[in-house]
Amino acid sequence: MNIALLPGDGIGPEVINQAVKVVNAIGKKFGHQISFKEALVGAAAIDATGDPYPDATHEVAANSDAILFGAIGDPKYDNDPKAKVRPEEGLLRMRKKLGLFANVRPTFTFPSLIHKSPLKLERVEGVDFVFFRELTGGVYFGEPRGRNEQGTKAFDTNVYSKEEITRLSRMGFEAAQKRRKLLTCVDKANVLATSRLWRETVQELAPEYPDVKVEYEFVDAVAMRLIQWPKAYDVLITENLFGDILTDEASVISGSMGLMPSASLGSAVKLFEPIHGSYPQAGGKDIANPLATVLSAAMMFDYAFDLKAEAELISKVVNESLAEGIVTEDIADGGKAYKTSEVGDWLA
Amino acid sequence: MNIALLPGDGIGPEVINQAVKVVNAIGKKFGHQISFKEALVGAAAIDATGDPYPDATHEVAANSDAILFGAIGDPKYDNDPKAKVRPEEGLLRMRKKLGLFANVRPTFTFPSLIHKSPLKLERVEGVDFVFFRELTGGVYFGEPRGRNEQGTKAFDTNVYSKEEITRLSRMGFEAAQKRRKLLTCVDKANVLATSRLWRETVQELAPEYPDVKVEYEFVDAVAMRLIQWPKAYDVLITENLFGDILTDEASVISGSMGLMPSASLGSAVKLFEPIHGSYPQAGGKDIANPLATVLSAAMMFDYAFDLKAEAELISKVVNESLAEGIVTEDIADGGKAYKTSEVGDWLA
Ligand SMILES: CC(C)[C@H](C(=O)O)[C@@H](O)C(=O)O
Ligand SMILES: CC(C)[C@H](C(=O)O)[C@@H](O)C(=O)O
Repeated sequence: MNIALLPGDGIGPEVINQAVKVVNAIGKKFGHQISFKEALVGAAAIDATGDPYPDATHEVAANSDAILFGAIGDPKYDNDPKAKVRPEEGLLRMRKKLGLFANVRPTFTFPSLIHKSPLKLERVEGVDFVFFRELTGGVYFGEPRGRNEQGTKAFDTNVYSKEEITRLSRMGFEAAQKRRKLLTCVDKANVLATSRLWRETVQELAPEYPDVKVEYEFVDAVAMRLIQWPKAYDVLITENLFGDILTDEASVISGSMGLMPSASLGSAVKLFEPIHGSYPQAGGKDIANPLATVLSAAMMFDYAFDLKAEAELISKVVNESLAEGIVTEDIADGGKAYKTSEVGDWLA
Repeated sequence: MNIALLPGDGIGPEVINQAVKVVNAIGKKFGHQISFKEALVGAAAIDATGDPYPDATHEVAANSDAILFGAIGDPKYDNDPKAKVRPEEGLLRMRKKLGLFANVRPTFTFPSLIHKSPLKLERVEGVDFVFFRELTGGVYFGEPRGRNEQGTKAFDTNVYSKEEITRLSRMGFEAAQKRRKLLTCVDKANVLATSRLWRETVQELAPEYPDVKVEYEFVDAVAMRLIQWPKAYDVLITENLFGDILTDEASVISGSMGLMPSASLGSAVKLFEPIHGSYPQAGGKDIANPLATVLSAAMMFDYAFDLKAEAELISKVVNESLAEGIVTEDIADGGKAYKTSEVGDWLA
C-alpha cells in the first residue's frame, strides 16, 4: 500500500503523525506492506514553493493508492482578500485534478462523548446519517468568476451538469440501499436553476432504486431539521457549497466535532481527511485531537483497500481510548488531558 | 397608517388574520387610524391570475406605509422542477421591486419556552443576536441563470457590487453600535470572489465605526458555532443565500421557531413577516402558531412607524400568552392547545 501523506497546515502535521503510527501498527499486526510518501500542500506549500498544490505533490498523490490529508488554511491569507494565492486553492485543485467528486461525511455518536453534544440527549442519541457532498463542481469551480475591471463588482458561477449530479446521486442511492433506505436530496429548487436540475435528475434516477425512499428538502429546512430532529436522516446528497455548510453544522451535533472523519471518492486514488480545520492557534502545541484523522485512516482501510477488519479494529481502539479517558484536552472534561502524541502512541 | 396585507399561501392567511386583530386593538388603544388593503401573492396569486406577484399587488404594496406578509410556497410547485411559474418568484420580485435589501432576523429566547430548545439550557440561555441578511442580490437574482440548450447543464450567477454590500453592512454596523458592539461578517472568502469583495468592503468600512469590533468568519464555521455557542454573536451580516440558510438554522435554536419575526428594510415601504414557512399541511386547520406574525407586527410599529410603546405592548402581551399557556398546539406541551383564532382573540 502506497500512502501519500499530505499534512498541510496548522495542526495537520501533528494529527497525521498519529494516524501514521496507527496505520503502521495495523500493517504490522495484519502483515501489510505499507509505505508512506509525504508532500506539501496548502500554506506550507506556498511558503516553500509559492504554489499551494505543487506538481511534485500531485505526482505523489496521483501515484499513491490512498491519501491521508491533514488540514489546510492559515489566517494570514484569510484576512487579505486581495491575496494572490491562497492555501485553499491547493485543496480545490487537488480535488479536481484527482477527480474526487464525492465527499462522504458521516455523523454518528460515541456513547462516552454524547453528553458533550450541544443538543439534548433525546435529540442526538442514536443519530447516524451520512452526507454525500459533491466536491468538484458547483460554485467552487464554475467560470466566470472574479471582478469587473474597476473592481467594484464581483461574481461567481454555480454550474452543474446532469452527469455530475448523476454520478454523485448514484453513490447516495447505493449507500442508502445498504443502510436505512432513505435518501434526502438537499437543494434550493425554489430559487436556483442548478437545484432544479439536481431535483429533476434525482427524480429520474429514483425508479432505478425502488427500495429507496427519496425525500426532497430545501437547504434552509435541512439546516433547521439537522438540529431539531437529526435522527430523521439516513443518507443526504447535495451540491458542493450546501454540503460544505451542512456537513460542518452536522459535525458538531454529536458532541465530537474533533472526531468526525471523511472520505473523498471518485477515482482510483481515494482521499481521507478529518472534517475539522487547521486550527492554527493550536498548531505545534501537541494538544490537537488526532481521533478524526485516525478514524479517517479507518475509513481508508475500508473504502480504499476493502479491509473491514483493519477498519473495525481502529474504530474499536478509538472507542477504548474514549472509554479509558486517553484523550486530548478538548474532550478531557476535567480528567487528565493527554498530548496529541501520547494519544497516538496509546492507540498504536 | 396604510397597511398592505399579503397573506400568501398555506397558513399565511390565518396568521395574518391574528396580526390584524392585534394591530386593530393597538390602533384603538393608542388612537391610530389604521386601514388595511389585502392583495394576492404566491401560489394564491398564481391560481387567481397566473402571476405570483400581479401588478395590482405591487400597486397595493408600493402605496402602503408597511406590509404585513404571511408566507409563500406550495408543494405542488416544489416537486415539479419544470414548473413555468413558481410562488417564490412572487416573493423575490416583490423584494426586488420594492427595494427591500435588508432582512433583519433576530434570534432571542422566551423564558417560558426555552425548555423546548433542542440545545441544552446553558448553551441557549440569554441568546440574543440579529442577522442582517442581504435580500435583493446575490445568486437569487444574478444573471445569467438557466440551462444550456440541451437542458443537460444548469447555471446560476452570484453577483455583488460594493454598493450593495456597503448599504447592508452600514445597517449592521449601526445596529451593532446600539447593541453589544460586535459585528460578524459571514462569508466564504477562502473560495468565492463575491465573498472576498464582501470582506474587503467591510474591512474598508470598519474604521468609520471604531466602537464596533469586527470579526470575519466563514459560513461553515458559523453554521457550527450557531449551535455550539450562539451567545458569542451580536450582529451578523451576510449575503442572501448564506443568510437564508443560517437564519433558518438560527430560528430553531431558541426553541421557538414558530415565534421568530422579521423585518425587510431598505425603502420607504417596509415589510414584516414571520420567518416560518407556509406549512401547507397545516393550512386552513386553525392550528398554526400566529405569534411570529404578531411579533412581526410589533416590529412594524417599531421600524416602520417608530412607535416603541405600541411595539413593546405587543411583545408584552405575547409574553403573557406564553406565561398563561394561551398557545397553539406546537408549544402547548401537554397543556390545553388553543386554536390560532383563539390565540389571536386573546392577544387582541
Ligand atoms: C478549506 C475549504 C476550502 C474547504 C471547503 O470549503 O471545501 C473546507 O471547508 C472543507 O469543507 O473541506
Ligand atoms: C421562499 C424562499 C424563496 C425564501 C428565500 O429563500 O428567501 C424563504 O426561504 C425566506 O427565507 O424568506
